[in-house]
Amino acid sequence: MIFLKNDYSLGAHPQVFQALADQNLTPSDSYSNDTFCTETTQLVRQITGQPDADVHFIAGGTLTNLVCLAAFMRPYEAVIAAESSHIYTHETGAIEATGHKVLPVPTTDGKVSPEDVDKVVAFHDMEQMVLPRVVYISDTTEMGAVYTLDELKALRACCDRHGLYLYIDGARLAMALGSSYNDVTLKDMAALADAFYFGGTKCGALFGEMVVIVNDTLKPHFRAIMRQNGALFAKGMLLGIQFQALLKDDLYTKLGRQADAMGQKLAHGIGAKGYEFAYTPVSNMIFPVMTREKAAELAQNVMFEKWLDNADGTQTIRFVTSWATTEDDIDGLLALL
Amino acid sequence: MIFLKNDYSLGAHPQVFQALADQNLTPSDSYSNDTFCTETTQLVRQITGQPDADVHFIAGGTLTNLVCLAAFMRPYEAVIAAESSHIYTHETGAIEATGHKVLPVPTTDGKVSPEDVDKVVAFHDMEQMVLPRVVYISDTTEMGAVYTLDELKALRACCDRHGLYLYIDGARLAMALGSSYNDVTLKDMAALADAFYFGGTKCGALFGEMVVIVNDTLKPHFRAIMRQNGALFAKGMLLGIQFQALLKDDLYTKLGRQADAMGQKLAHGIGAKGYEFAYTPVSNMIFPVMTREKAAELAQNVMFEKWLDNADGTQTIRFVTSWATTEDDIDGLLALL
Amino acid sequence: MIFLKNDYSLGAHPQVFQALADQNLTPSDSYSNDTFCTETTQLVRQITGQPDADVHFIAGGTLTNLVCLAAFMRPYEAVIAAESSHIYTHETGAIEATGHKVLPVPTTDGKVSPEDVDKVVAFHDMEQMVLPRVVYISDTTEMGAVYTLDELKALRACCDRHGLYLYIDGARLAMALGSSYNDVTLKDMAALADAFYFGGTKCGALFGEMVVIVNDTLKPHFRAIMRQNGALFAKGMLLGIQFQALLKDDLYTKLGRQADAMGQKLAHGIGAKGYEFAYTPVSNMIFPVMTREKAAELAQNVMFEKWLDNADGTQTIRFVTSWATTEDDIDGLLALL
Amino acid sequence: MIFLKNDYSLGAHPQVFQALADQNLTPSDSYSNDTFCTETTQLVRQITGQPDADVHFIAGGTLTNLVCLAAFMRPYEAVIAAESSHIYTHETGAIEATGHKVLPVPTTDGKVSPEDVDKVVAFHDMEQMVLPRVVYISDTTEMGAVYTLDELKALRACCDRHGLYLYIDGARLAMALGSSYNDVTLKDMAALADAFYFGGTKCGALFGEMVVIVNDTLKPHFRAIMRQNGALFAKGMLLGIQFQALLKDDLYTKLGRQADAMGQKLAHGIGAKGYEFAYTPVSNMIFPVMTREKAAELAQNVMFEKWLDNADGTQTIRFVTSWATTEDDIDGLLALL
Repeated sequence: MIFLKNDYSLGAHPQVFQALADQNLTPSDSYSNDTFCTETTQLVRQITGQPDADVHFIAGGTLTNLVCLAAFMRPYEAVIAAESSHIYTHETGAIEATGHKVLPVPTTDGKVSPEDVDKVVAFHDMEQMVLPRVVYISDTTEMGAVYTLDELKALRACCDRHGLYLYIDGARLAMALGSSYNDVTLKDMAALADAFYFGGTKCGALFGEMVVIVNDTLKPHFRAIMRQNGALFAKGMLLGIQFQALLKDDLYTKLGRQADAMGQKLAHGIGAKGYEFAYTPVSNMIFPVMTREKAAELAQNVMFEKWLDNADGTQTIRFVTSWATTEDDIDGLLALL
Repeated sequence: MIFLKNDYSLGAHPQVFQALADQNLTPSDSYSNDTFCTETTQLVRQITGQPDADVHFIAGGTLTNLVCLAAFMRPYEAVIAAESSHIYTHETGAIEATGHKVLPVPTTDGKVSPEDVDKVVAFHDMEQMVLPRVVYISDTTEMGAVYTLDELKALRACCDRHGLYLYIDGARLAMALGSSYNDVTLKDMAALADAFYFGGTKCGALFGEMVVIVNDTLKPHFRAIMRQNGALFAKGMLLGIQFQALLKDDLYTKLGRQADAMGQKLAHGIGAKGYEFAYTPVSNMIFPVMTREKAAELAQNVMFEKWLDNADGTQTIRFVTSWATTEDDIDGLLALL
Repeated sequence: MIFLKNDYSLGAHPQVFQALADQNLTPSDSYSNDTFCTETTQLVRQITGQPDADVHFIAGGTLTNLVCLAAFMRPYEAVIAAESSHIYTHETGAIEATGHKVLPVPTTDGKVSPEDVDKVVAFHDMEQMVLPRVVYISDTTEMGAVYTLDELKALRACCDRHGLYLYIDGARLAMALGSSYNDVTLKDMAALADAFYFGGTKCGALFGEMVVIVNDTLKPHFRAIMRQNGALFAKGMLLGIQFQALLKDDLYTKLGRQADAMGQKLAHGIGAKGYEFAYTPVSNMIFPVMTREKAAELAQNVMFEKWLDNADGTQTIRFVTSWATTEDDIDGLLALL
Repeated sequence: MIFLKNDYSLGAHPQVFQALADQNLTPSDSYSNDTFCTETTQLVRQITGQPDADVHFIAGGTLTNLVCLAAFMRPYEAVIAAESSHIYTHETGAIEATGHKVLPVPTTDGKVSPEDVDKVVAFHDMEQMVLPRVVYISDTTEMGAVYTLDELKALRACCDRHGLYLYIDGARLAMALGSSYNDVTLKDMAALADAFYFGGTKCGALFGEMVVIVNDTLKPHFRAIMRQNGALFAKGMLLGIQFQALLKDDLYTKLGRQADAMGQKLAHGIGAKGYEFAYTPVSNMIFPVMTREKAAELAQNVMFEKWLDNADGTQTIRFVTSWATTEDDIDGLLALL
């Protein structure tokens, strides 16, 4: 069975796992007050060019999103997000459960544009409406798209125009940074976002995400919101150790690049066989369109996800590669098409 | 100045006000445990043909909606509503503030169809998604449309198919019942809805709404949810007195019919002058389309609301009549067109 | 039957009711954007000596408390209140339902002291704990006690020391102002509190409360929080009209004084017959202690509330007088003791 | 430096770590749909004697408590807990943030008695109050106390009498099971509790807790509540693997016994030197009382927590042993006393 269902089916990249093994019996302070978290924070400040950034460590992505959005908004404020975004559809109403409305914008590939934001802001011009306060984007998006530097700059300008915060969900940040379509550096991202997070779970860590808060306004009492939501991890050192290993020699981007390279190899192979794609393949998530019969046939030897039943009777399916995907996996799949 | 801005700019209909005056110094039990609320409850059970219905009294419409939806859903459940519905756009995220997602469906005139509901339910087929549990409709809708008996029956069947509750916002129930396009009786409504409310604020009362809960499952502990949300009114007798007056000799429907009659007179007059309507005028809210210049000119003598800037440069505006609107008001307005 | 059960069993004081009657058919702007609310706001600013105060109108007391506390606190913050306070025991967890912890302090008569506050603040010295942010007091308290000017000044100083807001629940503010034990003026109160409210429901209004926000920090977006909680009253003019009538010629304090006078007459009479009081009687709520047999006998002719079963087998009961209580009521009760 | 500050300063017990290492590159299904979680669930059902129990895996203790309590209660319901309990004081209002009141009962050693529960239930006899629904206890308690079988049976009977659920926080369940004062088996616990959790974080796991839901009423849609609160762990297999290792050959209880044995050795040694204890030492948390000077002196060589400044000028301090504490640690500390 070839596994291309998702990018979180394994434990940690061996270097990350080894780092955990090395420190397994080192007594450390709790709640990220340990030396690993402290050193990692310093490292993050350096590589993002933000010497005053706050860095926080959280065990999972939904938890990270809900904590950040709960922390960044007052009760009557709302977050703008793609209709296809994780927070709008796939977190069982986690953001609404914190009391906030998510304002969806339709998109083709999950990328939110300044025009989308403008429209939502223009619509919410009455006291009876919620007040848009945060623009949530994911990079890569849920369809594997990658923001360009120009796009991020335009979103930043748009946010400034309307007094909005820009928050970037980096569950697959490694794959964004590693994409050959990417021209955004970590320094760019940190300069343009008010806050963003480095996904670990899908990018080589055993588990965990790392939030970077750049905007001073968003920093106070963030740990209180974390704790209140069960997100202040007792053994924070485990997260500090992992991200330290991931940032060492830029392993993080390398793993993203590796995942993307496999994705691109897969995309080229599939394209060469004449299949079309629902979204342009630029990272590690590939969405070919095929007949239901072909998809059903594939499912006997490959694990993947059905994405959409199309109106014309075809199906869009999703293949996801990761740092652990091998050339053999790809060749094996291509041989079946 | 002719006032056609909304239907809640006055106090109470004189008969309702007199009822309050008559009982102003009658000591009564608190929190709707008084004889007026008890008698009104009996009356409601009789006219709706629901001898076991629970009846509750709440001071305002948004409060009623948030209490009902908070009471009817578990945390991971969501309510389906028209994109134009009050709860989705004009209550400052009140439903989300209780922790629940509102799932919007696009409509032309605010009416939700079984097909709309089917689509939402079909989409929410994964554990990562919220679970649709309530269908919220308003009758009349925010565009003044009225549900037919066949439409309500089809929605009921749809809700039964999916295990959903049907909750009807009757902020303008009097105008629905009073419309010449209406073929739904109170008994029909009570038989088809799991819960609904009689709007008082816009229908002749000084203030207040009256909830009728038909489905036994939704009854327990409703008062606790009311109180927790500040909706258990200390002087509940004030609400009991008012609805008793409104239900006497069916004053409620008469006031709706009166408001609608003025609306229809207005619509015919406007139509006769060659204006088009954004939505078919069937109740007390009329949405003609005119040039911005014409609308601006009118605004010098008439109070109304701008509804929409249309793509072709015209404007849709909203006129609202009420039980207190006079023939003179209508004639005066028509003379200006 | 003599009614001494509570102070919200009637409609409005005749002067207030007449004011409503006078304006019943005057078209007014909605959501407190009308001239009555505007004029009343000006009046409140004048009599409180706070030309920049924000004034808001809400339909009930629990709703007022939950809106204020939700507006004044961030999610991880908590409110300090007497264990016997309305918000801690009798609002079905309304404050907790907005996400905030209520930190109870034991008191004898419902009055919170600076020492109580100091202790709570000292205890909450760890990151794992909520952050106390508001001190909630009620004046009169739930046991009918009244704060002195010195006590309020000391609480203010204590709040300043700890960075806390002082919020005063004035459900029975008229009775506090009208008490012969009171030496606090409205100007004092407004100078010492960050926010407080004039209770209407128990003090001569048909219904409604009026919030005064003095501290600039607490003003922005208060209406959004109101609306989100269903507390932005559509016909706000009804509340503006009532409070205008109550403030005219200081009717508000006069009604409180009248209620208190009846309370004092009752207390003196009861005391003269040798009964003891659970709390010193200084306003309109009187808590005599008697045998269960005596209480049961009284209950045949007087409506009152049982307050507490005492350890020695006696009962504390509660009599409440209001602006509508007559000398005959009191004489009638005393004759039964 | 001797480390006796807490029991969560290390990674995992070597056998647990090895299990993770063994499966690090085994592709597994996500969200606890993997074979490790499935097998562990079967194992738990067997050792608890509850073939129909639901088993869930969550990354941390506060998250577990808030998810369970949010899932088990309706909005107007409340949980009874010791005033010293983790949920009442040390989770930054996490339970209240889900909308629920925590009803505190004073205790000496953190153990809640049926009489405590009876009192709280008796007090909450009015509609204006929250409805107690869950009794939360922790075993061991925050003061290291252990419930006896008779005590748990009496609590169960009390809960049945009042229609309450019994939920046991087992953050230190291993130390409860391992205590020489314990006479409760896992089968007893599962038969008496409606739900409880096996703590992993403090009991040999790298991280994670495992919830066992016995009462059928509490089972439906629990995963939806988990996900909504960010508690449905993407790589659930990590938790399944760890608990499988912990349950193998009863390693879990053995590690608790080991921690307790070190605690008892410490307690005997301290007692022999004439110190008193604030709470009877029966598990792995030991609370001796000493002069501030002595405590300050100790702090130069030992890491521990200050627990309380006593009225007589002495201090209560807290030593915590774990599965990793050595005899040398204990001897070293005792030599300093």
